[in-house]
Amino acid sequence: MPDSIPEDSVGIVEPELHHFDEPLTLRSGRVLPQYDLMVETYGQLNADKSNAVLICHALSGDHHAAGYHSMDDRKPGWWDNCIGPGKPIDTRHFFVVSLNNLGGCNGSTGPTSINPETGQYYGPDFPVVTVRDWVHSQARLADRLGIDKWAAVIGGSLGGMQVMRWAISYPERLHHAVMLAVAPKLSAQNIAFNEVARQSITSDPDFHDGRYRDHGVVPKRGLMLARMVGHITYLSDSSMREKFGRATEQLKHSLNLGRDLRKGKLSFGFDVDFQVESYLHYQGERFSETFDANTYLLMTKALDYFDPTVDYEGDLSAAFAESQCRFVLMSFSTDWRFPPARTREIVDALIRAGKPVSYLEIEADQGHDAFLLPVPRYISAFRNYMQRVHEEVSHAS
Amino acid sequence: MPDSIPEDSVGIVEPELHHFDEPLTLRSGRVLPQYDLMVETYGQLNADKSNAVLICHALSGDHHAAGYHSMDDRKPGWWDNCIGPGKPIDTRHFFVVSLNNLGGCNGSTGPTSINPETGQYYGPDFPVVTVRDWVHSQARLADRLGIDKWAAVIGGSLGGMQVMRWAISYPERLHHAVMLAVAPKLSAQNIAFNEVARQSITSDPDFHDGRYRDHGVVPKRGLMLARMVGHITYLSDSSMREKFGRATEQLKHSLNLGRDLRKGKLSFGFDVDFQVESYLHYQGERFSETFDANTYLLMTKALDYFDPTVDYEGDLSAAFAESQCRFVLMSFSTDWRFPPARTREIVDALIRAGKPVSYLEIEADQGHDAFLLPVPRYISAFRNYMQRVHEEVSHAS
Repeated sequence: MPDSIPEDSVGIVEPELHHFDEPLTLRSGRVLPQYDLMVETYGQLNADKSNAVLICHALSGDHHAAGYHSMDDRKPGWWDNCIGPGKPIDTRHFFVVSLNNLGGCNGSTGPTSINPETGQYYGPDFPVVTVRDWVHSQARLADRLGIDKWAAVIGGSLGGMQVMRWAISYPERLHHAVMLAVAPKLSAQNIAFNEVARQSITSDPDFHDGRYRDHGVVPKRGLMLARMVGHITYLSDSSMREKFGRATEQLKHSLNLGRDLRKGKLSFGFDVDFQVESYLHYQGERFSETFDANTYLLMTKALDYFDPTVDYEGDLSAAFAESQCRFVLMSFSTDWRFPPARTREIVDALIRAGKPVSYLEIEADQGHDAFLLPVPRYISAFRNYMQRVHEEVSHAS
Repeated sequence: MPDSIPEDSVGIVEPELHHFDEPLTLRSGRVLPQYDLMVETYGQLNADKSNAVLICHALSGDHHAAGYHSMDDRKPGWWDNCIGPGKPIDTRHFFVVSLNNLGGCNGSTGPTSINPETGQYYGPDFPVVTVRDWVHSQARLADRLGIDKWAAVIGGSLGGMQVMRWAISYPERLHHAVMLAVAPKLSAQNIAFNEVARQSITSDPDFHDGRYRDHGVVPKRGLMLARMVGHITYLSDSSMREKFGRATEQLKHSLNLGRDLRKGKLSFGFDVDFQVESYLHYQGERFSETFDANTYLLMTKALDYFDPTVDYEGDLSAAFAESQCRFVLMSFSTDWRFPPARTREIVDALIRAGKPVSYLEIEADQGHDAFLLPVPRYISAFRNYMQRVHEEVSHAS
């Protein structure tokens, strides 16, 4: 709830639903006969349509990347730190396109949508979608908007994987690939954490094999657990230490729980003793009230499956052979989900492939989440790079 | 199921139950009026009782540290790699004492025991026990066995925390403190993982507020999830990569799951796709069949609560001021649960306190679990150190 819209905000924005009638054949072989994509745009598309950039969202993101939907909004879009007038993705220069991916739960066709073939909610019958499928649907959105070539395709984490896929699948359709906090594919440990999250959801008795909606419930506990696990992996050990240390919980929680827990005292029971516990509970609960469990399953599976080398016998540099864009990658020192060493695997592959690539490792305490946050050196480097993209586009026009 | 007992095994062993009638006042203020400790010993106590070493177990350990209970045993005790004739804790020289800690589920008094005051199972009413309480009960066990002073108290992880507590609370009762893969106290991230594990258990509908036994069920799914999360933190990213990489699951699983999943193919569904997933399922399931959920809650809380500086205004070196033993600590390069930097905090505190301390960082791929495994440099350093302890004890006799 901003009292007034900040000057560097894109302001009040309105999403727009794009319907697609052409069937989309997915990587699994299944076909989506028709689908909707929920889209937001910020800034103005220029006359020759050369200033468009695409934002690809991560696991729990959506189309609402910047600005506010109304003056009652508690918070702006998820990447408001980076999108707006004067911000790295400067809306005075760029036409920014942001969409909710297929399988999502915020307006694009997904498990919470009606399956036109049955008239029922898709629920667990929504097909498994992959990064490649998303990029395919994004290319169709570009066609719809008349954008032949993006000035840049930009994303962090799972969003960065979509950028990678763009550079491989549509080499002639982007000038710049901007990948943040990304890895070439998940490690066994990453997959393991995703599997724990999925098991948390599917073993919640309210999950009902994904048909929870028919039972008038949601698998809230499972979704909460899944988010708690996820959240630990997004934060760094050091950011958690800084945020909470071992600070014991405040009186308010002891009241909630009906315990005589004085501030700084241990409960000697199984209630919340440490602030980090109540923080995770809060994050998990909030998430479980807004996010769809079937979508969460789909998103984690898309992460697990992503492997750009699958058509290239495991050779990542071969995968980039046809790419024509310039690449920039940034990683964050305390990101232990996708540590800098994983990002450098991509950089090394691009170098071996002879592609133009810039790479910056940012010192930041915030772990994987850093790409969402106003880390000064990151914001400044990101802004400088995008400024050069803008100048290139302007000169070409 | 050994065909024959290996030469370097302690052989067939038999646990012994020690009953204690003297009430034990716990750190929480609650009192255990009486209790049992399940104990195993290996080797022979010498005449002057100077060759005894105490083994302290970690989260899911118990008294059965070495040897076999019968020729039908599938596996030996949990630390058989380190205890036996010719092994680091050489049973030709030492009298080894190993017990199941209070609150455990393998014979010592805990949630699965009958509360003598009610005639019912303790279940969730079993009091929260701390490392200090365990060490208190271990000191009584030493009294019972006539051991005034341990040649060494030895433990890894949560076991190492008990060793630390021995050195602080009973400075005159041990010659050597051997701590492996240990930290001075949990980080916020460590606590967060424990809380996810606890939430997994308590949100299982079969948990019934800890009274699952009255309902004839066990919270198997919750315990399985808890163990899966735990297991990820015990292994290193690199060991998981080495063990599983991104290898896709075998045919057998597709058959189990009734899917047409060919080897090396993705399921495009929510069944097991990667070996790491089925490995975690297996570990989690096996654990959930043998371990008590209330005990798991207690053990994680003991970990969370451990803070040896609590009586010393946060100053770890002050905590060690009265200690009289020699210290040896070892950490493992890929342990991200208790990384070497955390172990060095203890080493530094000991140096500041002017105490004799040796420290070794072992290169090992196996993460936190390395202290349980036959890592050559670790085994060799451990053996050398214990050999010197043995020589000291022999000369003093």
